[in-house]
Amino acid sequence: MARRTVQILKGTRDFLPSQFIRRRRIIEVIQQTFEQFGFEPMETPAIEYAETLEEKYGEEGDRLIYKFTDQGGRRVALRYDLTVPLARAVAMYPVERIFRRYQISPVWRADRPQKGRFREFWQCDADIVGSKEMWADAEVIALTYVTLKKLGFEEFTIRINNRKLLNGIAIYGGIDEEHMASFFRVIDKAEKIGWDGVRKELKDRSFPESVVEKTVGIISQEAKRDGNLEKLRVILKDIPVALEGTMELEEINNCLKNMDIDLEHISFDVSLARGLDYYTGPIFETVIKKPQIGSISGGGRFDNLIGIFSGKDIPATGTSLGLERIITIMEELDMLPEISTLSEVLVTVFDRSLVKISFQIVSELRSAGIKAEIYLKEERLKKQLNYANSKGIPLVVIIGPDEVERGEIGLRDMRRKTQMNVPRKDITQKIKELLADK
Amino acid sequence: MARRTVQILKGTRDFLPSQFIRRRRIIEVIQQTFEQFGFEPMETPAIEYAETLEEKYGEEGDRLIYKFTDQGGRRVALRYDLTVPLARAVAMYPVERIFRRYQISPVWRADRPQKGRFREFWQCDADIVGSKEMWADAEVIALTYVTLKKLGFEEFTIRINNRKLLNGIAIYGGIDEEHMASFFRVIDKAEKIGWDGVRKELKDRSFPESVVEKTVGIISQEAKRDGNLEKLRVILKDIPVALEGTMELEEINNCLKNMDIDLEHISFDVSLARGLDYYTGPIFETVIKKPQIGSISGGGRFDNLIGIFSGKDIPATGTSLGLERIITIMEELDMLPEISTLSEVLVTVFDRSLVKISFQIVSELRSAGIKAEIYLKEERLKKQLNYANSKGIPLVVIIGPDEVERGEIGLRDMRRKTQMNVPRKDITQKIKELLADK
Repeated sequence: MARRTVQILKGTRDFLPSQFIRRRRIIEVIQQTFEQFGFEPMETPAIEYAETLEEKYGEEGDRLIYKFTDQGGRRVALRYDLTVPLARAVAMYPVERIFRRYQISPVWRADRPQKGRFREFWQCDADIVGSKEMWADAEVIALTYVTLKKLGFEEFTIRINNRKLLNGIAIYGGIDEEHMASFFRVIDKAEKIGWDGVRKELKDRSFPESVVEKTVGIISQEAKRDGNLEKLRVILKDIPVALEGTMELEEINNCLKNMDIDLEHISFDVSLARGLDYYTGPIFETVIKKPQIGSISGGGRFDNLIGIFSGKDIPATGTSLGLERIITIMEELDMLPEISTLSEVLVTVFDRSLVKISFQIVSELRSAGIKAEIYLKEERLKKQLNYANSKGIPLVVIIGPDEVERGEIGLRDMRRKTQMNVPRKDITQKIKELLADK
Repeated sequence: MARRTVQILKGTRDFLPSQFIRRRRIIEVIQQTFEQFGFEPMETPAIEYAETLEEKYGEEGDRLIYKFTDQGGRRVALRYDLTVPLARAVAMYPVERIFRRYQISPVWRADRPQKGRFREFWQCDADIVGSKEMWADAEVIALTYVTLKKLGFEEFTIRINNRKLLNGIAIYGGIDEEHMASFFRVIDKAEKIGWDGVRKELKDRSFPESVVEKTVGIISQEAKRDGNLEKLRVILKDIPVALEGTMELEEINNCLKNMDIDLEHISFDVSLARGLDYYTGPIFETVIKKPQIGSISGGGRFDNLIGIFSGKDIPATGTSLGLERIITIMEELDMLPEISTLSEVLVTVFDRSLVKISFQIVSELRSAGIKAEIYLKEERLKKQLNYANSKGIPLVVIIGPDEVERGEIGLRDMRRKTQMNVPRKDITQKIKELLADK
């Protein structure tokens, strides 16, 4: 076969062990925290029927669905996120009472790859299905808080708002149902394009000047938590849906107060809109001050999404943590664990005649629960030590003819740069002691 | 939007938490064993360029590659296995010395789904790159053995053979290079169609009668380990490649003898051929006697596959465990762990006025490392207890106005069907004690 250029698709990545081990440590922390909150793991297929995903993410989202026709002529797609497949699954296997699930899996986008933007990337989603109470939203927000704390984040803000409140402001400004999604999508860009930019884009999209002033005027006052809810209630007193939104925000706040959470990290922000079409109530996202990288989590309540599939509305709320951004930030802030290998011991091989003793020892170490490698080439000891060193394996077992004659094993501690001889029968015990003493 | 039938693609599956938790326990055992042997996790993308995968798996394999043209007009494919992407990756990021990696990930096939045959399913691969020594093959075989033991398998046989030996037999029978792959594919069906079936199919494929008798004659004698290697050496004494094959088998056997392995589970079997084109030396697979389900692992040496991508041959050997078959068998033999939830405590909610106390307690439990859920509906206690019961949550916290007045918490042990009152301040400690006492 003619050899061609070897490459992978732009926007997809290989994770070699030294990278993947760190990545997995992060995933494990997220997973453990999710489970601490009673969320349980679930998996849906990577491939869905295209129509399952279509018309759920808004125009722009629809364009980014990675879809194709398969060999059987079926219109299929790689999952775009983990929320719509969850809604589809809940419609297929009806849930009694409350259902908390998490999923940490790759998703795909037919996007133009660029720095920090991938065709294949991972999301970490936790959702609660079956509760219309704001308690559920508070749980999801608390989960986000605790997860980020456990990962070691110190400076982050979870911004909270409510689509009902935004709806109310839109109604107050005279925007009809049909144009609301478009209105929210522009508001959502405020962080990026500023309030003048928002005003301009709304006008470009033919929202009348008076409407723009009335709505953007309220929102851009950049209301802060608690205090301004009162002011909004006064302005919007004749709009029931807006009042409902403020009450929901207050209820969430009351729950959070009773959890082990520093409320300095939570901020009510009436300018938060979130791009997705399917949100119906509270919405939230997490931003990091430094580095400026956009949001690292986003979520909200989606009480109508499951109904699209099942015909029967089931309330639901949840959040999605963006693993790629979290890792990027942790790298930049030097927060990643220092670990490059899982192996604890390298058993070297003196030569072909002694390899069987190396096999005996590596086998004994493994049986004792120690992560042990045996070197698999007949090479000089120096090269084998170099291998252990470059991989970061802390201990090396050395068996030469001298050691065999004395009934001993050489044991080198790569971290302390020391070497000792250990009686053959004590080797496993000695290695356990050295590994325990970090 | 009009509601359509909600479904997933045939041959793909949703794993609800109650199923997925068990599935993950299996994956964790495999993962831990792989790591004990010094294999480290790596991830490659789900999507590869189609040409990376094409012409690697033989005719039949090629037809089953799940490939399509994406929005950018690129010919891409979902990975068919984990071996070819590994070879592609090693060609892209050259490996110094020895490289042991494992990957546990889904793969896709454009197959007709049927019982036990999926379009999306998981493989668990462990491979060693960079060693031409049979030590590496012995490691991979030992890994398979220990993994199956740790999963609880008692009756299994790892069949071992060598493509060089089979090549030698083919040469002895007068088969030329060009027809060997086709010859091996027929031999590989012996288990399914019997030796008469093999003879017939070889003749149908135009192998001459004399060739068929000479080759199938030797192979069908169903040679057993050790003993018959001698006999084969006599018959094939003038075929160097065959002798090389027998020596390799012997070397592997010598290594295995020095590892903590019951050799009763290892069987040399000259009739083993394995279907894939890319094997070059030792080949192996694991079969279970009961239930009869075909092989649950398969692997071998592929010294030329990386060279297809890099232009420079790098030796490699490895094995792939079929997660789906392993789980199917474990289900049938009732070997799966009995576990339906990860949650340890359900904190109930008496009513809206007392929910804040429930939040305080669940928050305290979680901070202490306990996996705790709070019930998220205002419902009668009986319903909340039913929920804990049907999920299998062992402990339930009850807080009513009486308990609050007495400064106590009700604690129900669902397993022992007992209930007690615990002072508010002791609740976390008490729960820890009950959970430790299983």
